[in-house]
Amino acid sequence: MNDFIYHIPTKVYFGRDHLQHLGAELKQFGPRVLMTYGGGSIKRVGLYDRVVQAVREAGLELYELPGIEPNPRIGSVREGARLCKEHHIDVLLAVGGGSTIDATKFIAAGACVDHDPWDFLDLAKRAPIERALPIVDILTLSATGSEMDTGGVISNPETHDKIGRLAPQLLPRVSFLDPTNTFTVSRFQTACGAADMLSHIIEVYFTTQHDLFMLDCFMEGLMKTIIRFAPVAMAEPENYEARANLMWTSSWAINGFVNGGKTKAWSCHPMEHELSAYYDITHGLGLAILTPRWMEYCLDDERLPRYVQYGVNVFGIDASLPPIEIARKAIAATAHFLYDTLGLQRTLPEVGIDDTHFATMARKAVGGDALPGFKPLRQADVEAIYRMCMA
Amino acid sequence: MNDFIYHIPTKVYFGRDHLQHLGAELKQFGPRVLMTYGGGSIKRVGLYDRVVQAVREAGLELYELPGIEPNPRIGSVREGARLCKEHHIDVLLAVGGGSTIDATKFIAAGACVDHDPWDFLDLAKRAPIERALPIVDILTLSATGSEMDTGGVISNPETHDKIGRLAPQLLPRVSFLDPTNTFTVSRFQTACGAADMLSHIIEVYFTTQHDLFMLDCFMEGLMKTIIRFAPVAMAEPENYEARANLMWTSSWAINGFVNGGKTKAWSCHPMEHELSAYYDITHGLGLAILTPRWMEYCLDDERLPRYVQYGVNVFGIDASLPPIEIARKAIAATAHFLYDTLGLQRTLPEVGIDDTHFATMARKAVGGDALPGFKPLRQADVEAIYRMCMA
Repeated sequence: MNDFIYHIPTKVYFGRDHLQHLGAELKQFGPRVLMTYGGGSIKRVGLYDRVVQAVREAGLELYELPGIEPNPRIGSVREGARLCKEHHIDVLLAVGGGSTIDATKFIAAGACVDHDPWDFLDLAKRAPIERALPIVDILTLSATGSEMDTGGVISNPETHDKIGRLAPQLLPRVSFLDPTNTFTVSRFQTACGAADMLSHIIEVYFTTQHDLFMLDCFMEGLMKTIIRFAPVAMAEPENYEARANLMWTSSWAINGFVNGGKTKAWSCHPMEHELSAYYDITHGLGLAILTPRWMEYCLDDERLPRYVQYGVNVFGIDASLPPIEIARKAIAATAHFLYDTLGLQRTLPEVGIDDTHFATMARKAVGGDALPGFKPLRQADVEAIYRMCMA
Repeated sequence: MNDFIYHIPTKVYFGRDHLQHLGAELKQFGPRVLMTYGGGSIKRVGLYDRVVQAVREAGLELYELPGIEPNPRIGSVREGARLCKEHHIDVLLAVGGGSTIDATKFIAAGACVDHDPWDFLDLAKRAPIERALPIVDILTLSATGSEMDTGGVISNPETHDKIGRLAPQLLPRVSFLDPTNTFTVSRFQTACGAADMLSHIIEVYFTTQHDLFMLDCFMEGLMKTIIRFAPVAMAEPENYEARANLMWTSSWAINGFVNGGKTKAWSCHPMEHELSAYYDITHGLGLAILTPRWMEYCLDDERLPRYVQYGVNVFGIDASLPPIEIARKAIAATAHFLYDTLGLQRTLPEVGIDDTHFATMARKAVGGDALPGFKPLRQADVEAIYRMCMA
């Protein structure tokens, strides 16, 4: 068990009726606010108007950066950093899902430096992140957990790069988590969000490291929550209980708490980032396609006990069965949840991906010699996993 | 489900090798440190010397308040507040268990006002807590969770009062949680700590309110952790895994996370505070005696489903049994864990308590009309529960 530091000072307003606190929370950082958002769905549902009203009533100056893309791009980050400098912005207000918040994090850091914000992400440069403007967010999609973590992922379409980075300065100061703001999320995006948060937990849960049992229990609870409530939210989009459970789970799946005592070495996420970097598919969908194949690929005698614990505690598989049978049933149950219950596509060809870039993507996913993680994966391993996703 | 605010900015250093950060963490608040501790066990085990060395190496000025009692008393708080004023203390360093940290919290607040610190607790006065000196702590006992929560409980032997209070200003800024610092905790105190943290969870878990399933899962995981590792720590005091699981569980049992979406209305704690106010028994021991009787007293048709969920998910009782049978088995399993596994005393007479003060204690426990909580309890109910603890 490794030593660790736990420190998540984000203040979270959870529930329906907290927007009256928005003005005061922003104001503590200064009067000039840059609001960032995506394609405009927040206007259709009336959230935009309520936010603007709250900001204005607090006597703050409001600037806007709309149009942040899913798989957010460095172009938006550059534009946001430019606006911050031009208007001497004091605080950023991200209204949206993980893409908007991720982009806002690098805008916040970019506003404090003279260089191109891509230098923070560029693997050859990795410019230090020493300061960032404070970030407040209003979450509209339960998925990435960006509302309570220190990371973000930015795409550079010119170079087919999709790169993530963590820095404590990027942690949102205040997050408004109102489950009703996710009532209008589509069935498909609800499913992709569920797959994303499930993957965040699986990336940590599947380990051969010795760690804290209490965190294993917590992760099993989070996974059971996703499996129980994602289908409810898809069938009844305005079911508050389902949306609330998914929303709070999205934050805790990745805010770092579950990681206490472990090293952080993920597998499916780096493999997926290449898929969405090359094909701009939804991140959660790419994870859903990869995860059961990765589980199958990694299964061996040494790793078997983890599959058994997962199968018994998360899916309720009969603990008296032979371990290998439990493991196979656990993988099948995961696939059944992702493809049948959530209705996500099962193969890469179904989402328009063929084997053209497998070698390049696998090489980039691995980075150096091998992806560390549950089972170390070399380029050939990643290619093999991509290939398993062809049918 | 109620709206809630989640905000726990405490920075936690968890593990063996973090003491080298102590100096820098203290120094950020200023050079004058008041170190508070209890009866001197930290000297016997060498922790005192290591802390003093770290503080001195950081070039800080060290003052000391030793002798903080179990069930800490207002006299220590008054003395601590006086020392803070006399020496212009910048930051408090509590080294000990919940008693030391609780007392330190009210010293920190008392240092910032001119009135008697008891006025913060006195139910007739309830002086506002607007400021407090920053608190850093080094935890040596897994039990109360004071290292990561906003509350403390102080005894006033003159008035037989034992009163708790919460205030965000009292939250420790930095907590050092090193499981090896609990290796020397006795079997009895390990058991009492386990009973205390189990009670913290039960007080929240047993509810008729609608709330977050993901938090129910988390609480079940915490309870399973205590049930699994408390006996291990008692049998093998230097088992790191057991001590680590208990330590992190103690913090999360009561830091407020599990409470998200619920009102906070506890039952066994107010009943127990009267026992230890009148008889100065160990808090966790009093809770252990009360809890199974309280469970038995509250069991009715309306509340039955919670007992069933508890029995099945925490103790693995066969879900196909009749619900009332599961409930009875769950209460019996709780009693078995507390009295047989942990070896704690089962009745009030065994700890030197008779029925002399039952009426007064019950009246004070109830406060006004009735204790709210899982099942509202009037004075007669509390007296009945005390009486159930006689044999």
